[in-house]
Amino acid sequence: DLPFGLICGPCQLESLDHARMLAEKIAKACDATGTPFIFKGSYDKANRSSLSGERGLGSEVGLTILSKIRDEFGCPVLTDVHETHHCDMAAEFVDILQIPAFLCRQTDLLLAAGETGKVINIKKGQFLAPWDMANVAQKVASTGNHNIMLCDRGTSFGYNTLVSDFRGLPKMAETGYPVVFDATHSVQQPGGNGNSSGGDRTMVPPLARAAVAVGVSCLFIEAHEDPDNAPSDGPNMVRIEELQGLLGTLRALDNVVKPA
Amino acid sequence: DLPFGLICGPCQLESLDHARMLAEKIAKACDATGTPFIFKGSYDKANRSSLSGERGLGSEVGLTILSKIRDEFGCPVLTDVHETHHCDMAAEFVDILQIPAFLCRQTDLLLAAGETGKVINIKKGQFLAPWDMANVAQKVASTGNHNIMLCDRGTSFGYNTLVSDFRGLPKMAETGYPVVFDATHSVQQPGGNGNSSGGDRTMVPPLARAAVAVGVSCLFIEAHEDPDNAPSDGPNMVRIEELQGLLGTLRALDNVVKPA
Amino acid sequence: DLPFGLICGPCQLESLDHARMLAEKIAKACDATGTPFIFKGSYDKANRSSLSGERGLGSEVGLTILSKIRDEFGCPVLTDVHETHHCDMAAEFVDILQIPAFLCRQTDLLLAAGETGKVINIKKGQFLAPWDMANVAQKVASTGNHNIMLCDRGTSFGYNTLVSDFRGLPKMAETGYPVVFDATHSVQQPGGNGNSSGGDRTMVPPLARAAVAVGVSCLFIEAHEDPDNAPSDGPNMVRIEELQGLLGTLRALDNVVKPA
Amino acid sequence: DLPFGLICGPCQLESLDHARMLAEKIAKACDATGTPFIFKGSYDKANRSSLSGERGLGSEVGLTILSKIRDEFGCPVLTDVHETHHCDMAAEFVDILQIPAFLCRQTDLLLAAGETGKVINIKKGQFLAPWDMANVAQKVASTGNHNIMLCDRGTSFGYNTLVSDFRGLPKMAETGYPVVFDATHSVQQPGGNGNSSGGDRTMVPPLARAAVAVGVSCLFIEAHEDPDNAPSDGPNMVRIEELQGLLGTLRALDNVVKPA
Repeated sequence: DLPFGLICGPCQLESLDHARMLAEKIAKACDATGTPFIFKGSYDKANRSSLSGERGLGSEVGLTILSKIRDEFGCPVLTDVHETHHCDMAAEFVDILQIPAFLCRQTDLLLAAGETGKVINIKKGQFLAPWDMANVAQKVASTGNHNIMLCDRGTSFGYNTLVSDFRGLPKMAETGYPVVFDATHSVQQPGGNGNSSGGDRTMVPPLARAAVAVGVSCLFIEAHEDPDNAPSDGPNMVRIEELQGLLGTLRALDNVVKPA
Repeated sequence: DLPFGLICGPCQLESLDHARMLAEKIAKACDATGTPFIFKGSYDKANRSSLSGERGLGSEVGLTILSKIRDEFGCPVLTDVHETHHCDMAAEFVDILQIPAFLCRQTDLLLAAGETGKVINIKKGQFLAPWDMANVAQKVASTGNHNIMLCDRGTSFGYNTLVSDFRGLPKMAETGYPVVFDATHSVQQPGGNGNSSGGDRTMVPPLARAAVAVGVSCLFIEAHEDPDNAPSDGPNMVRIEELQGLLGTLRALDNVVKPA
Repeated sequence: DLPFGLICGPCQLESLDHARMLAEKIAKACDATGTPFIFKGSYDKANRSSLSGERGLGSEVGLTILSKIRDEFGCPVLTDVHETHHCDMAAEFVDILQIPAFLCRQTDLLLAAGETGKVINIKKGQFLAPWDMANVAQKVASTGNHNIMLCDRGTSFGYNTLVSDFRGLPKMAETGYPVVFDATHSVQQPGGNGNSSGGDRTMVPPLARAAVAVGVSCLFIEAHEDPDNAPSDGPNMVRIEELQGLLGTLRALDNVVKPA
Repeated sequence: DLPFGLICGPCQLESLDHARMLAEKIAKACDATGTPFIFKGSYDKANRSSLSGERGLGSEVGLTILSKIRDEFGCPVLTDVHETHHCDMAAEFVDILQIPAFLCRQTDLLLAAGETGKVINIKKGQFLAPWDMANVAQKVASTGNHNIMLCDRGTSFGYNTLVSDFRGLPKMAETGYPVVFDATHSVQQPGGNGNSSGGDRTMVPPLARAAVAVGVSCLFIEAHEDPDNAPSDGPNMVRIEELQGLLGTLRALDNVVKPA
């Protein structure tokens, strides 16, 4: 029952300067609210809605940025991997490897990630019941690596819509692994804008509050200084200036449900 | 941004003594936590899964019980109505008429209820989007009665399952009417037990916490001294002894999101 | 394994002349394809999305029209009922009483309808699993009336959308009662137009073909000479001129799956 | 509007003898009904529900079996690929590369598959709307390869359940690419058996009939001589002895909807 930590950063890494600028603001907001933080950034958006979506900086540049952020800010860093042969490379630079939701059933990827010994944050597939994540986690655990986090980022609900079933958080917690709520992708409207995903960032604060009140180990929130012009997930990212205020409320809710 | 109130009682009225016993315990839990309360009880379960489910005490006995509880405890009382000709009768005894979820699109029932001038608590149909409740409320408001509450009790999600979409609470609040979260029926598994509905009462506290953290005017929670042997909704009702502890946590969460 | 029959008519009755005009065209199309037909018409639309939707002609005028159509065309006629006290009155004029989907769990309505001795066509609630219709039918059957038909008109699928699960037709057929597929309301987008329901009539023919290929006793299709200007369900009704062609294909499919 | 073809084989390749035995029976059933056929078999089940599920024969053995079946029976052969580096290898042995549903948004895999010049059968993700497959197909088409097939294998519907939305078939056909209906995986209950997926093979024939009546270019049906003891997807596979009878009915339905 430790206080929740925050996984935060841009959806897609843009440059070292940009990552540094965001990390500074995140660190300040987390510092002010006593929140441990993990910096996240993607070097490759491997599953965009359409080909016209930007892919990112690539592994070499992206991973170097993440390791510099780690050095400069003393925070753990996280990135996502998409094929088995990415795992070893990414593991050299980051602390946490993230398995994307669409890929959470790919046995080889889970095994390759697990074998790096890094912490593995597995997003629950939009097509998966919370209780089915026990089998998913077991694939990673079979490598001897029990540093596993299970993350809810919404469940398919009709077309182009996700719903957050908050019963899933305690269900996934029954595995004994820490549970993360991804408040950013949970408000995504997949494919909702035709060639890209839509979303509704005004719903990030209420869903984040709900998750903390239910009880989580970590929150995952993407932030940006100008979300409407971000290269991906703009409709879902919160403005970085609003992060500190949001964290203050979440911290107070967390204190209620996790009494000392 | 007033503190949340509690709508509480058994699913179905069993006897005056039983109602009084429950009302006493509810009053005590509410008193201890500074929670205003409304007593609820159904005199007729008009839409049971199967014919073998008990219907209830009938209108005469049931409504008399409710009005006695009101007199003895000084609390408002609520019951549900199912056909137009029930509205006037029930309105003589209770303060709040509730429109069941299945019936939330029945124009005549909404008009007849509205015309009583009583407060009308409309449950959102499991088949309805939160934003579609504006048209539903407008049917009642057309009678000149704006004493309307909108209540979420879950949305159809595959078969025999409901999901609580917490984005619906702020969406319904955009109407300007107070929003209620029904934590009891939201954990129902409709038809899940073959001849009756199943449910999972262990999920009532986490969902109630989530709702309060999102922000609501009222919570609806059914309670019973022996839920496993209650004549209806047993799997979903909380044990009356656990109410006060739950309210304490909810009250603290409410204070966080509704600063004075 | 009799050839399928057709339940057809306008959504809402408009006038005797209009009903007669449609009945003539339906009779011609059915005659040409060897299809038994039942004329349907609603005298009251009791659950419109919003108050601004037209309600209909009322019971007296509407039921008289239906009984005249029966006399003139020698076909059974069907209408829907919404409260218990409508059943006896409607039963004097029509052959089949229809229980609307939202009301399929209202015990009193099912009993009152059953007690008329008429054929009862029960639409499956959008919120109900196909197997849960056995309990629903049992409510009617408890009156001694086994003239029951079970009708699928779509299941809630996210917000403002229905999906037709064709596994539901054989599931409902396990009750032993004839199964109807409502191809009109299955393509409805409930509340999809803000103040009224949207729909996509281009999907009526493919879904009707699917239902016949799976195997049904009856199809329910609403038709209109000018659907875009019809007072209700316009987006879902087929053009009456297209009915005969559609029936020809459906008849041929039915012959394949119901070999003599 | 050519007659539908059949993609058929075991879920997972077991041995050359087993593949040959099945191919003979499939060829006989297809021959008797005038159905062109494609043999399918997986050499690696890369996304089993749990680690305890068998993975398969591996690429070398599996692909050799497929190429022998092609030589002996003169039919095209199909297998599925899971990472970019599988595409070139598999393309040396088979005619059709299949993209699994979970992977249908992985840009690199789609590009690598497209670049082989082979026919690419893309399964629609359970989390994807039919209209979103246009962007998916465009990723393959960007390689200059327009030999694309789009396949529906069900859509997420609550937990552990899929539903077949038959409106999706004409929607996907609007892309101009041939549309396939996978009747086997559409009846899967993902994760429904705890450590493996459940299913209901009795629903394969009705859903296959529905798909043909709506109109498809191909059907995908897995078959086995002893499905209950098959190493994967047993609950969903049809008995090979029942294939010919099923194809006869489907052929007749196809003739109705695709008049010469």
